[in-house]
Amino acid sequence: MRKSIATVCLSGTLTEKLTAASRAGFDGVEIFENDLLASPLAPEEIAARTADLGLGIDLYQPMRDIEAVPEEIFARNLRRARHKFQLMRRLGADTVLVCSSIAPQAVDDDALAAEQLSRLADLAQEFGIRVAYEALAWGRHVSTYGHAWRIVEAADHPALGTCLDSFHILSRASGPEDLKGIADIPGDKIFFLQLADAPLMAMDVLQWSRHYRCFPGQGGFDVAGLLRHVLNAGYDGPLSLEVFNDVFRQADAGRTALDGLRSLLALEENAGVSPLPAPVIPSGVAFAELATSDPEPVGELLTALGFTRTARHHGKPVDLWAQGGARVLVNTGAAGRRTDTTLAAVGLETADPAASARRAEALLAPALPKRRAAQDVPLESIAAPDGTEVLFCATSRPELPSWTDDFTYTAENGPGDAMVIDHLALTQPWHHFDESVLFHRTVLGLSPHETVELADPYGLFRSRALSASSDGPRLVLNLAPAPEEGGEIRARHVAFAVGDIVAAVRRFRTAGAGLLPVPANYYDDLEARFEFAEGELETYRELGILYDRDERGGEFRHCYTETVGHVFFEFVQRSGGYSGFGAANAPIRLAAQRR
Amino acid sequence: MRKSIATVCLSGTLTEKLTAASRAGFDGVEIFENDLLASPLAPEEIAARTADLGLGIDLYQPMRDIEAVPEEIFARNLRRARHKFQLMRRLGADTVLVCSSIAPQAVDDDALAAEQLSRLADLAQEFGIRVAYEALAWGRHVSTYGHAWRIVEAADHPALGTCLDSFHILSRASGPEDLKGIADIPGDKIFFLQLADAPLMAMDVLQWSRHYRCFPGQGGFDVAGLLRHVLNAGYDGPLSLEVFNDVFRQADAGRTALDGLRSLLALEENAGVSPLPAPVIPSGVAFAELATSDPEPVGELLTALGFTRTARHHGKPVDLWAQGGARVLVNTGAAGRRTDTTLAAVGLETADPAASARRAEALLAPALPKRRAAQDVPLESIAAPDGTEVLFCATSRPELPSWTDDFTYTAENGPGDAMVIDHLALTQPWHHFDESVLFHRTVLGLSPHETVELADPYGLFRSRALSASSDGPRLVLNLAPAPEEGGEIRARHVAFAVGDIVAAVRRFRTAGAGLLPVPANYYDDLEARFEFAEGELETYRELGILYDRDERGGEFRHCYTETVGHVFFEFVQRSGGYSGFGAANAPIRLAAQRR
Repeated sequence: MRKSIATVCLSGTLTEKLTAASRAGFDGVEIFENDLLASPLAPEEIAARTADLGLGIDLYQPMRDIEAVPEEIFARNLRRARHKFQLMRRLGADTVLVCSSIAPQAVDDDALAAEQLSRLADLAQEFGIRVAYEALAWGRHVSTYGHAWRIVEAADHPALGTCLDSFHILSRASGPEDLKGIADIPGDKIFFLQLADAPLMAMDVLQWSRHYRCFPGQGGFDVAGLLRHVLNAGYDGPLSLEVFNDVFRQADAGRTALDGLRSLLALEENAGVSPLPAPVIPSGVAFAELATSDPEPVGELLTALGFTRTARHHGKPVDLWAQGGARVLVNTGAAGRRTDTTLAAVGLETADPAASARRAEALLAPALPKRRAAQDVPLESIAAPDGTEVLFCATSRPELPSWTDDFTYTAENGPGDAMVIDHLALTQPWHHFDESVLFHRTVLGLSPHETVELADPYGLFRSRALSASSDGPRLVLNLAPAPEEGGEIRARHVAFAVGDIVAAVRRFRTAGAGLLPVPANYYDDLEARFEFAEGELETYRELGILYDRDERGGEFRHCYTETVGHVFFEFVQRSGGYSGFGAANAPIRLAAQRR
Repeated sequence: MRKSIATVCLSGTLTEKLTAASRAGFDGVEIFENDLLASPLAPEEIAARTADLGLGIDLYQPMRDIEAVPEEIFARNLRRARHKFQLMRRLGADTVLVCSSIAPQAVDDDALAAEQLSRLADLAQEFGIRVAYEALAWGRHVSTYGHAWRIVEAADHPALGTCLDSFHILSRASGPEDLKGIADIPGDKIFFLQLADAPLMAMDVLQWSRHYRCFPGQGGFDVAGLLRHVLNAGYDGPLSLEVFNDVFRQADAGRTALDGLRSLLALEENAGVSPLPAPVIPSGVAFAELATSDPEPVGELLTALGFTRTARHHGKPVDLWAQGGARVLVNTGAAGRRTDTTLAAVGLETADPAASARRAEALLAPALPKRRAAQDVPLESIAAPDGTEVLFCATSRPELPSWTDDFTYTAENGPGDAMVIDHLALTQPWHHFDESVLFHRTVLGLSPHETVELADPYGLFRSRALSASSDGPRLVLNLAPAPEEGGEIRARHVAFAVGDIVAAVRRFRTAGAGLLPVPANYYDDLEARFEFAEGELETYRELGILYDRDERGGEFRHCYTETVGHVFFEFVQRSGGYSGFGAANAPIRLAAQRR
């Protein structure tokens, strides 16, 4: 289907917004009036620019406070409308959005509203323009789509139809039955469809709408369900994004546009409109890749943690460190310039790397330039929104090439207590949290958990995990507080699962690994909160192991290393079906890291 | 009265929080449990540190989900409480906050709640501890202060009292009559009083509380009215701030503590508890002072705008530019280092500069070091939270020394269309908006207007004006969106009122002043929105004058200059009682400045 985006979704000048929409691949735009007013371009120049960029102007918006007013006011409104219709002619836009009135002068009189909207449509028709009447959720007298449709139906004018908006409808819907009335609207009288999602919040609907809307799939509304209703009614116009969001206003327009188009592609798939290559859900983490210009500090730490440098890439300065089934690559390829150690890439195991890459491409994930030599094993890779490289791996499968074949083995790795990578925690840059969640959910087929808020000594941050299954790869996306001027980027980490964390920590201590100290007060609190077996708490206290227990008795024991550059490691032992990440202990960890 | 602050109000480690509270001048603190758990200091060390800093530990908080549960659970809760009471002994804290339960296991049984709280108080008494029971606004069964008090009254235990919290009470109060029940509580059974304000918002009360609380006087609650009720009941314990706020979590703890103590001082004045030196409301703006290392560009602009360099300070590199009653100082005192032009200071006219300074000092405004030589006229000055220097001036009053006596006059200034300074717009640093509003309201006695939100191409920002009277000095505080990394500081400006802006702009254009261009589309929209006299709109369009009209027909015509360094100028013509600042035109101005 045709895909559009309202300019109000994007930051910058009108020209920047149009360019971003075009580059992302949209077919059209809604021109938000204030964007036009603030532009130095004449309407004809905007029309030409839009056409050059391959975009249609699918809607001009909004016109407000038109209908159901005393005749004297309506005459002024018609005068205002005539000016706007003249402008739309110059712009080449043929549909205008009229929002239900919020004016104190408006009266509760559907017949008057229908009569005046019909006269507005008469005037619009002279200019070849169609009027799409929409119920604002906070409209003074008309606040539901059904009510707006009854007025449009009563007016019965060929140039008057309705505009449906998923936010206005779903923010007021108490259940799916509230959407059934959409079927009563003839498809050709639905002149436009605006799409937005929002997190489920109990707050004033106007504030909710103005500040918290997000792209479909990023909030809590069933936008796909609504779309199915609208399509069943026979609508075949554009799917158009209209999102007001404090974060989008500040974010880079090009990225926001791409994020928006990805959300529409996933929405179409979800609503059964047009399929995408099926997701190939990752079955494990093949490796975590660290980049650094100085491999010594992290190498020392890995050694003390029981890892062995087992292999070296045959053509590049990349070492493979392993322990049990856990692998860490240390890449000094960028050693020319000084870089602190970062968690730069992750290899995910997939049953079909080529199919994974096809889905990623269909969902607009940027494929990364192949940095591999002719003799290297082919390896598909994409960039996640945070810049992390994601590589699709088929490790040691006989029927497929394996990235491990590019490595020359120099040592055996020990069993390492059957160690594997449990999860990766990726700090997200400001502005890109919802984009990242949508990306990982749609491109990689991971399922998001609930968002949790964690207290750091210098701010709150949001954390959201995604996982393939209870055993599959888990990613934790962390959003740090709004950046201070000159603020630091919080470190990322790799968490390894072990079978016996007490034994593991004893080995680490013997080998001199630097572990994060845990305050004694924490253990006094554990003692108050839980009952432990004889000596158990004393062991945790001695070794600096953190502890959590869920409501069903599942247990989580974990500890952290010191930070090297921008990376640290965690070791976890899960039992009894514990599926979280020890959020209750995060403030303790964050405070210790701040010292 | 004794003044305390909860550590959760302040950012940083526990040590940083205690230090900030002490330096600001608080008498005591509430220790928030998580701050203690994350601290490497033992409770005895915290006790010693607190005592060294001259602070008492007035409350340990919170204990949750204690009461009205099956006996088996209550036994575990008592076990937990015993651990906490032991900890409080080590800490030297003698009052604990118990919040009404939100646990799903809690039952709606006041008699059981009273019986179990009484047993908790028995245990507390063994440790010399008092239990202060508080109704959370979102408590499962107990959510009003009256209900909490009935349970405390029924328990009738000397170690059990109630804690009143202004947020929990006022967020649920529908009017002043809901506070009358406070009079029924004996003062000695009110064990503690927590104070917070909040902006009036229609949203889930838990989210409202967790993210949006602010200090008394910074929100929309009548905290002073509540305080009067509590004092009338006979309470004489601490006034203690407890604020959860996403911004405070990131702000500098020292500044937040000072802001909090200022809010309590103003609250005491407001509630009639203890008076402060009376405010001396400024009667005008004596001057705006620009600092720059290169006075040429701004001098050229001022000249083209009709200003004359009329005088020079006898001892410092400060020029006085004047036109009519408008004065601008250009200070090149910091010329040693390269500084772009900034709006650094403002002189306010006051009937009694010494009294203004006394009030400022009583409200913790930092007095600035006197930078004046022995022969200079004495001039009191303080620093506003944003670093702007505020000078208290008595210009050309026979009975008082005038700062103008320090200047040597070299030229006459023209009448300049009776020009005066209309307002100053001061961009505020992130984190300090509410602090700035409270400062200007309490220290200077200005009255805040409503907050408005303005759309910039790269974000929303908040703007709030304060004024002394309809004619008196007006300040506009602007809060830019959260800083990007490396984000710019938005420019500040000085607005001059003129009697005939059309004539003024024609003079500026003739003299070659650089004025901000206004898009043609803006005038097309004005034509659609308003009816104008013949030729009026064409004049505005020709000259780049912006226009606004309020609901009562008051009119506002204004224009902006180009920006020099971080400063620009505005010229305004008000008529018909227009009291705003042309907020509707702000997006047009901001977009033009972004180009």
